[in-house]
Parts: sequence; structure tokens; C-alpha cells
Amino acid sequence: MNFVIIHPSEFDEKSGIAKLSGRRVEHMLNVLKLDERSGICKVGLLGGMMGSGELVELDRESMQATLCLTLNVLPPNALPLKLIAAVPRPKSFRKVLHGAISMGVKELWFVHTFKVDKSYWQTPWLSEEALQSEIILALEQAGDTVMPKLEFRRRFKPFVEDELAQIAKDSNFLVAHPSGITEVPVGFNRPITLCLGPEGGFTDYEVELLNNQGAESVTLGSRILRTEVALPALLARLYTL
Amino acid sequence: MNFVIIHPSEFDEKSGIAKLSGRRVEHMLNVLKLDERSGICKVGLLGGMMGSGELVELDRESMQATLCLTLNVLPPNALPLKLIAAVPRPKSFRKVLHGAISMGVKELWFVHTFKVDKSYWQTPWLSEEALQSEIILALEQAGDTVMPKLEFRRRFKPFVEDELAQIAKDSNFLVAHPSGITEVPVGFNRPITLCLGPEGGFTDYEVELLNNQGAESVTLGSRILRTEVALPALLARLYTL
Repeated sequence: MNFVIIHPSEFDEKSGIAKLSGRRVEHMLNVLKLDERSGICKVGLLGGMMGSGELVELDRESMQATLCLTLNVLPPNALPLKLIAAVPRPKSFRKVLHGAISMGVKELWFVHTFKVDKSYWQTPWLSEEALQSEIILALEQAGDTVMPKLEFRRRFKPFVEDELAQIAKDSNFLVAHPSGITEVPVGFNRPITLCLGPEGGFTDYEVELLNNQGAESVTLGSRILRTEVALPALLARLYTL
Repeated sequence: MNFVIIHPSEFDEKSGIAKLSGRRVEHMLNVLKLDERSGICKVGLLGGMMGSGELVELDRESMQATLCLTLNVLPPNALPLKLIAAVPRPKSFRKVLHGAISMGVKELWFVHTFKVDKSYWQTPWLSEEALQSEIILALEQAGDTVMPKLEFRRRFKPFVEDELAQIAKDSNFLVAHPSGITEVPVGFNRPITLCLGPEGGFTDYEVELLNNQGAESVTLGSRILRTEVALPALLARLYTL
């Protein structure tokens, strides 16, 4: 956590005072080493502005802190990218989500594909609570306050045929897989809808369904990368971060 | 594992026959779903050529397999990059190592810096055995056979002052950190020596030591990324993979 995120319900706009407790206060004390004498840290209001917070009161027993906030910085730019990703295996899911959000992706669809094991959908990381907490951690990592929008689709074909054209409208529509021929464009910096397959790749049939909706196949090269490695690589090529 | 790595000691060059056992045979049977009737998988000879292996004999009891190899493909190009990275915290170490090796980095120095916790050096992942096994997993992931060279340095200043100039000779020498001003170059594709700080960043003094040796500060942007996310992003910008 490089940055403390404050929920609007914890903040009184008139006085500029925020009251918070728990994990974040522990982190402020134990990792950021704040105390009553020198207590300034970077903060952001969830969904709003960022700036600094001065620790003005601290109750070490109840782990409650009062901060006086100065909010004068806009959150960093979002990437104008819609990510459609096959649900990664449980070990990878949080890493993929963290990477995407910390790099500024704000719209994500996780979809089932042929090579996604059905058991992947059972992971506790997909619970609403786990998702929220992972998203906040990633925003805190990157210094960002804007929540992303997450969607899940358990049926690939209806999603591609009924929804994807609308999602990809007014953007460059790409599907990344190792057998693509065109190299991923560099410093593209325009709206993109990017489809990313599972570890085993999309099937030929799935690629064909995507191509039928207008997706162009692109590749990062012949090495097969884990999703959590391929995604930061793709985003860093497509955008000046 | 997309790819089965065979040790030279398991291979008889004259007959083209390899005998292997254990984890890889289990993987061939349970994940790649090979059996005696249809048994072809991608293989590579550690340090040598790659190609395909046909399963010609299988002992399910002792989990021993005999493959007939056709080795006619060169391993993928290595990245002409020397990576100098602060030792990541134990949770990140394997991810950073895996990302670097699966993307083709062949020379890595892990170094101590001011913001590296001394306890990071105690992680069992730094044992010779754990390193070897993680390296093989990353080569198997990417489809590569060439072992990287790993070095560890516990004292930053002597390393930078006495060794780094020699290492960085004849390459572009970069230090990546969020406060750099110049953007990371795109599609550079030439020899680079890249220094990557710890999660808390290099100290100003450390950056100065690196700059004194000729390192140019570059940045990926203002978002603070975990090392395992920043590294694939940097490599994908610097090189056409």
C-alpha cells in the first residue's frame, strides 16, 4: 500500500476530516511509520480526488485514526481499454486482476472459454467481498481512486455473438494469442477492446467467432507467457502508461 | 508446462532416444493427455535444440517414459538484456524470476538495496535447488532450453562501483524508477543493462550512484507497480518479443 484509500462515508467534506480504522491504520503505523509527531501520507478519496492526509489524532488501542485531508490531485488517467479475459486459473486470477487494475484498466469482462476448467469458477477469489478487497489493494498499489467495472460471463458464444460487437464499438478490436501473425502495435494510445485467451489459448473456433465480430489477431511473439505476465506486456506495448 | 525439457544425461544422441521419469511423465499423462497410442509432445534438450518427442514406451507403474526425439528447431532468441534487480520480497521473488526468464532474460543480478528488508535474503526460494526448479518451470512455460545465469550481490555500493561499469559496457544503461523523467524507449531492440529498484524504490543516493556509473533514469509513468508487473511491462516496451 503506497497510498491510503478513504471511503466517502469516512470523510466529512466540510471540515476536511476523515476517520478511519483497522488494516489501513495498522499499515500507516507499522509500514509507513507515521506517528502523532510526523504523520503525513498520500491519500485518495474512493471515486474522487487524491492528495495528502495529516494524522491529527490517533487511538492506538482501538486503531482509529483521524486525518486532515488536502485533496488537490486528479487520479491518474485510466487506460482507454476494455479487457475481455478468459477466467484464469485460481492461482493466477488475483495476479491478473491486480496487474490490470494497477495499470489502469477500468472495464473488465471475465469469460468462460473451452480451455477454462469449470472448477475455476468455484474459487473463493470470485466472491464479491474478495473482489472488492483485491480491487482496493490494487488501487492502493498504483495510487488511483477510480473503481473498475467487472463483469463475468459463463457462456462464451452468446457473449461474443450478442454483446461483444456493442462493447467493441468505436474501438480497435484485438485478440491476442501466440499464433497471431501481426505484432501487437506499440504506443497505440487509442481505445482498444482486447481479448486475452486462457493459458491453453483460445480454440480455433473461438478465434473464428471473435474474428467474425471484427477482432484482429495480434501476437507478442512465440513464447507462451502466463496470463499475469502477458497482460502487463500487452498493456505496456499498446499504451504510454 | 507447455513443453518438456530433457536433460542431456537422459538423452542418447545416437539413437535419438530419451528416458525420463517423475513430474514430467505425470504431466505428459495427466495434463497433455498423452498415451501409448497418440503420444507426441513438444520437447527441448536443456541447453540445446528443440522439437518433438514421440512416446514409444511407457511404464505407468514406475512413471518412466521413453521418447523418440526429433530436434530440429532452435530455441527462441534471448533478450539482449542484463537485469539488475533489487531482491524482491519473498512473495514476489518467484514471480519476478519467472516473468524475466519466460520472457527471455538470460543474465540476472539480484542485489541488496537500502529498501530491501534483510529478511528477504532468508527465503527458501533462494536455495540453489529452488532456483533451479523455478528456472526449469519458466523455460518449460516459454518453450526455451537455454539456462540463464543468476548472480546475487549482498552489498550494493561495491557492486555498483566495482562491477557494474564492466557489466554495462557496450550496452544502453538504464535505471527504471517512477520518478524518472524520460519515458522508457519503445522497440529499442539493442543491448540494454536495466536496473530495477525494490518496491519502495531506489533511494536518491542509490540513483546517484547508478547515474555516476552512466545509468540514465527512465520511467513507465506515475503509477507504482509491483515488480512482477513492472518488469514484463518494461521488457515489452524495450523489445519486440
